[in-house]
Amino acid sequence: MEPHFTKIKGGVGAPLGFLTSAVSCGIKNPDATRLDLALILSESPCVSAGTFTTNRVKAAPVKLTQAHLRRGEIRAIIANSGNANACTGVVGIRDAKAMCQKVAKELSLNASEVGVCSTGVIGLPMPMSRIEPKIPALAQALAPKQGHDVAAAIITSDTHPKEVAISLDIDGHKVRIGGCVKGAGMISPSMATMLCFITTDAHITSDCLRKATLESVENSFNRITIDGDMSTNDTVLVLANGRSGMPLIRRNSQACKMFRAGLQYVMLELAKAVVRDGERVTKFVTVEVKGARTYLDAKKVAEAVSKSALVKSSWNGGDPNWGRIIHAVGYSRARIREELVDIFLNGKAACLGGLQATTPMDDLRTIAAKPEFTVEIHLNQGEANYTMYTSDLSPEYIDFNRSEYAYWKQARKDGLI
Amino acid sequence: MEPHFTKIKGGVGAPLGFLTSAVSCGIKNPDATRLDLALILSESPCVSAGTFTTNRVKAAPVKLTQAHLRRGEIRAIIANSGNANACTGVVGIRDAKAMCQKVAKELSLNASEVGVCSTGVIGLPMPMSRIEPKIPALAQALAPKQGHDVAAAIITSDTHPKEVAISLDIDGHKVRIGGCVKGAGMISPSMATMLCFITTDAHITSDCLRKATLESVENSFNRITIDGDMSTNDTVLVLANGRSGMPLIRRNSQACKMFRAGLQYVMLELAKAVVRDGERVTKFVTVEVKGARTYLDAKKVAEAVSKSALVKSSWNGGDPNWGRIIHAVGYSRARIREELVDIFLNGKAACLGGLQATTPMDDLRTIAAKPEFTVEIHLNQGEANYTMYTSDLSPEYIDFNRSEYAYWKQARKDGLI
Repeated sequence: MEPHFTKIKGGVGAPLGFLTSAVSCGIKNPDATRLDLALILSESPCVSAGTFTTNRVKAAPVKLTQAHLRRGEIRAIIANSGNANACTGVVGIRDAKAMCQKVAKELSLNASEVGVCSTGVIGLPMPMSRIEPKIPALAQALAPKQGHDVAAAIITSDTHPKEVAISLDIDGHKVRIGGCVKGAGMISPSMATMLCFITTDAHITSDCLRKATLESVENSFNRITIDGDMSTNDTVLVLANGRSGMPLIRRNSQACKMFRAGLQYVMLELAKAVVRDGERVTKFVTVEVKGARTYLDAKKVAEAVSKSALVKSSWNGGDPNWGRIIHAVGYSRARIREELVDIFLNGKAACLGGLQATTPMDDLRTIAAKPEFTVEIHLNQGEANYTMYTSDLSPEYIDFNRSEYAYWKQARKDGLI
Repeated sequence: MEPHFTKIKGGVGAPLGFLTSAVSCGIKNPDATRLDLALILSESPCVSAGTFTTNRVKAAPVKLTQAHLRRGEIRAIIANSGNANACTGVVGIRDAKAMCQKVAKELSLNASEVGVCSTGVIGLPMPMSRIEPKIPALAQALAPKQGHDVAAAIITSDTHPKEVAISLDIDGHKVRIGGCVKGAGMISPSMATMLCFITTDAHITSDCLRKATLESVENSFNRITIDGDMSTNDTVLVLANGRSGMPLIRRNSQACKMFRAGLQYVMLELAKAVVRDGERVTKFVTVEVKGARTYLDAKKVAEAVSKSALVKSSWNGGDPNWGRIIHAVGYSRARIREELVDIFLNGKAACLGGLQATTPMDDLRTIAAKPEFTVEIHLNQGEANYTMYTSDLSPEYIDFNRSEYAYWKQARKDGLI
């Protein structure tokens, strides 16, 4: 039975029993009034799962939240934008702990029941004198809303908040899954640089939730790339509070499969939204590799093509340049045979057997000029497939990322460094 | 004894006994008059060595020249710019063979004594009707010159020809090594996308020349990166004709070491020239990784930093952003400990023990604003070092690479596709 999802309003506030709030602290700029501190709370105890950056340089909140998850279940999440609290040493750990402790005190929880996430500039201490005083008001503002406030407070260079929520039927019970995501640059596989929070009122074992989370991240956030960079702060947290009133979902059950399908759908929608909102991105490109000898070969080809600066530059120019695509296929280290490679744009052959196909060039150019298209690469050597979602690389991306110096200047003015 | 090199005039024509020539065929554009077909000949038999792209998609001339080198020694090289003869199937092999055969006939050589190299657009058949008729004139024009004509004929998006020549003293005999290189985009380790031809009048065994070539390429062209892409056509060819009149250089001798030092010097100078002339590059950055646990760890860190789009974007903006550098260190998959990492710009500390150093920020900014600077990364975990040479990534690079469509249009007009 194929699972059926219905999109519903909202994000992390859509499932039953979750409260959200957000306030403005002026973390990045003391004079700004935008939301930059958010809180999510499950009204009742819940189970939780997370995946984190594999960067060896891990931000303080990542280390602390990992420790909290090892100790037990997380029930609340505090998150800020504007400062990543990364490369901040013992001071950073102290600050992340202080954020959890203050939230725990306000909500009568243990500090280890609170997860903390930060995103923003690396290497600057957190402006705690601006954050801590706002936490009581943040806790008081908690209310059953759809979660737009959280989605809005965590964004940085994103052009808009990104959230999605669905309901699905599992064994006759209605279950809701909602999520929001932040991230627009520093996006790369394993894993996309971003914060993602997912809530659900499904009733599920901790064990089953953890497995579903790992698998869903592998099939969503680990399949997107914008600039090939990987951040110090990547975090996906999933909270499940069982408030839907359904029977417990156990591992390896049909219900578990259906839940996982729903979770993966939500994550994939959010992951795609991240690529579409990538820094100065003008194209959303799906790279489908088919017929590889192994899954790993397919993955290597998809990643090489999706990350090639030259391929991405040509997409920016609307150029259906299959020569650059096959050259990336060639250096991917996958086992490929040039004379077997076929490349299609939206189903039209650009290259057959490693050679120029006869499709009129203007047809291919029309496809490459579209804001979204699919590049299919058939290696014709086996049965393994892999799909990635990527973007072009624009001159504006580089312009946009040329300097963070102004923030550092501000931090010195604030006496932080 | 440290070897002593004296720079001398010219490039591949500087060593004794080498003749060069170049003509214009209008390969890319029938109406253009720029040089695009070059020839190098050793007047007497010589030994030869080569290294080639590791891309699995190899251009026809690469496959053919590899085969010729396996069969024996190469004594002449024909090279063209404007068309890579890559992804051209059996037609491409036939065309590459025809070029060698025609040259061999004119020079009374075997076809397998001729190496062939092509660079330019991928996927288009060679305009042989414009190339073949020019080969007799090319052969007739051969003369003892410095080699500027070859350096000029092989460039594509390079802003200027790049060549270097030195003389050195080996056991009391004067030996000359000269070279030219082409390449400005698609540059990445193993190896830099480019054509490089080196000639020398050293008297050396084939065995020793091969080893010296492999080691020198590893320490030069494999250490540069511009855009992280790797081409289908990369070729380094080295010809040694013994015309200096010195005694034979044998493997593992002191003379062999000195020759290798000279060869490596020439290759490194050419490799750096490629980075400096990188497509729309505004910075030349040396990334020195020190104190890694192993050579491989040091290499991983150097490559991750040198290839990060975000790090390169910040350099374009003159931003000394050490946060982005350490985040690339972290995702390099090398074994590093964040709290031990020190980062210096031109010797000034930007980050000590994973934290912001106290160097005044404007001092660091002044360094990052320079056209050339050195980033030293001390991992403080061992004794292994690795150095790479890289560039910034500019909005203009992407603009420049947005479309090759015009060439394809021209090719269709020419009836080639």
